[in-house]
Amino acid sequence: MPKVLITTVPFAERNKFPLEMLESNGIEYVINPLNKKLTEAELADLIPEFDALIAGTEPITDYVMSCAPRLKHISRVGIGLDSVDLLAAEKRGIKVSYTPDAPAPAVAELTMGLMLSLLRSIHIANTQMHQGQWKRVFGRRIAEITVGIIGVGRIGTRVLRRMRGFGTPKIMVNDILPNLELNREFKLNWASKTDIYREADLISIHVPLTAQTKNMIRKEHLLQMKPDALLINTSRGGIVNEQDLFEVLQSGHLGGAAIDVFTQEPYHGDLAKIDRCILTSHMGSMSVDCRTRMEIEATQEAVRFLVGQSLQSLVPETEYNVQRQGL
Amino acid sequence: MPKVLITTVPFAERNKFPLEMLESNGIEYVINPLNKKLTEAELADLIPEFDALIAGTEPITDYVMSCAPRLKHISRVGIGLDSVDLLAAEKRGIKVSYTPDAPAPAVAELTMGLMLSLLRSIHIANTQMHQGQWKRVFGRRIAEITVGIIGVGRIGTRVLRRMRGFGTPKIMVNDILPNLELNREFKLNWASKTDIYREADLISIHVPLTAQTKNMIRKEHLLQMKPDALLINTSRGGIVNEQDLFEVLQSGHLGGAAIDVFTQEPYHGDLAKIDRCILTSHMGSMSVDCRTRMEIEATQEAVRFLVGQSLQSLVPETEYNVQRQGL
Repeated sequence: MPKVLITTVPFAERNKFPLEMLESNGIEYVINPLNKKLTEAELADLIPEFDALIAGTEPITDYVMSCAPRLKHISRVGIGLDSVDLLAAEKRGIKVSYTPDAPAPAVAELTMGLMLSLLRSIHIANTQMHQGQWKRVFGRRIAEITVGIIGVGRIGTRVLRRMRGFGTPKIMVNDILPNLELNREFKLNWASKTDIYREADLISIHVPLTAQTKNMIRKEHLLQMKPDALLINTSRGGIVNEQDLFEVLQSGHLGGAAIDVFTQEPYHGDLAKIDRCILTSHMGSMSVDCRTRMEIEATQEAVRFLVGQSLQSLVPETEYNVQRQGL
Repeated sequence: MPKVLITTVPFAERNKFPLEMLESNGIEYVINPLNKKLTEAELADLIPEFDALIAGTEPITDYVMSCAPRLKHISRVGIGLDSVDLLAAEKRGIKVSYTPDAPAPAVAELTMGLMLSLLRSIHIANTQMHQGQWKRVFGRRIAEITVGIIGVGRIGTRVLRRMRGFGTPKIMVNDILPNLELNREFKLNWASKTDIYREADLISIHVPLTAQTKNMIRKEHLLQMKPDALLINTSRGGIVNEQDLFEVLQSGHLGGAAIDVFTQEPYHGDLAKIDRCILTSHMGSMSVDCRTRMEIEATQEAVRFLVGQSLQSLVPETEYNVQRQGL
């Protein structure tokens, strides 16, 4: 009987269909017994007996794979592949699939919520009111500001789409290669990252974690931003340097920030000391519908693989090339 | 030299144009020296020497007017008229004007921010993360739920417009008279308030405070709502019974609430004890652009009146009729 290890948690909490799928296909499964994001060592410890892995964002390294002689398929619940050593998997003949579209609407929607919270200081007012303080805080509307979007792929595009009902801000966008098709749908200013840092009132990051984006936003970039600029990161930890962001916010620069993703998760760092920094716990994809879709799609792939059907959402060659350039 | 009392605060904090307008027209002014929402007694104390009032939401009662022998014009910064005794003003020959359109985009946008915060538990996660706790909370997307909008006038319509980019939720709407014109723009289900209470996952209130809406949502209505329903009030305090809401939330019913307006402001009540109740400090109109527009429009009216031009934004007869029905 084939065995699947499910590491991402929570799993099938709101919808049991993924587990039912495994059971009705005669596949044994174990859900992450530590009920938290696993470290490399913890995963290496658990993995030896499993044929497939339904994975979260825990590090699936060459070492982990070396401890998994039976492993032949990694099915990522989500889109980011920074946690998977694709080249090691390729070398060992382990297939990797993912669910690239499923999380996007939920991440875009959390981003919009963070954007409106930052712009109207909902988080500040809420904290103050719960402490018995009444202070009417001025805010800005989306249509009043220049919005900078770094990364306009699946998620960035959906953020743009959701901003539409809010009037017409000036929108600056940046990507490794501009997708000029988007100009048909939106009025966009394609701009350098430096211009976005300097001119945008609100900057939102929607890029994958790669060698190029790792530590992309450091103190020097944060200091280039307007004194009251707002920064949102719902993409991956490590893209914005956390210590630099903490120091810059503490010094009084920037109007605020909203961070959903961290270098080390669970996060217990210094940003918690900054009231005007909204912190959420990697909740981008955590809407019931998107999470369910991600879990179903990832489980379907694992079932397909284990019953001998061909995979439908294999990670494309471009992602391997990204890692060939080094992470 | 005519004299204007400006009671709403902050005033001209971000844009000095309203004050410049008064000065260049030879109009003397005093800005609320107590720098807070005035009580009836405080206003009565201040008002005797003034010819016009640029007003916030403080109570402008018959008694206040009886202390203001020179007062001939009340210019409301905003749309709500529950604070102005229109019939007393009419009786005394005091003109009343307002700025009905200016606040709407800002209120709609705060409402969207509160909606997304409630749906994704941004406020809960932010509080927990600042206390060092990491817990991934499940949320819902707008397109997954049934949204109930009570009051689809200037603000409710703008909320609908902003929701458009988020997919197509089931939308239930209610108003004293349905504006079927809106059906051309949106897919709406016109419904009774009772049906909205029973069926909506998120209910947002956008009605004025009148005899009909005062204390409109009490314990019996809150208990009709789904156990995980979310309630937003950015309209006026007193429409949702605060004590009832507190008791119902404390009992565990309702998924959360977001309240921006209170019977008594500044608010220092029990809702501050409820973590899943977002509280903001009557900040609906507090975007720089809308606030500036409101202040400029209200000041323009006061200048027009005092230099002998006709008013352009007089409160319509329908509002007097509403008060004739009793408040």
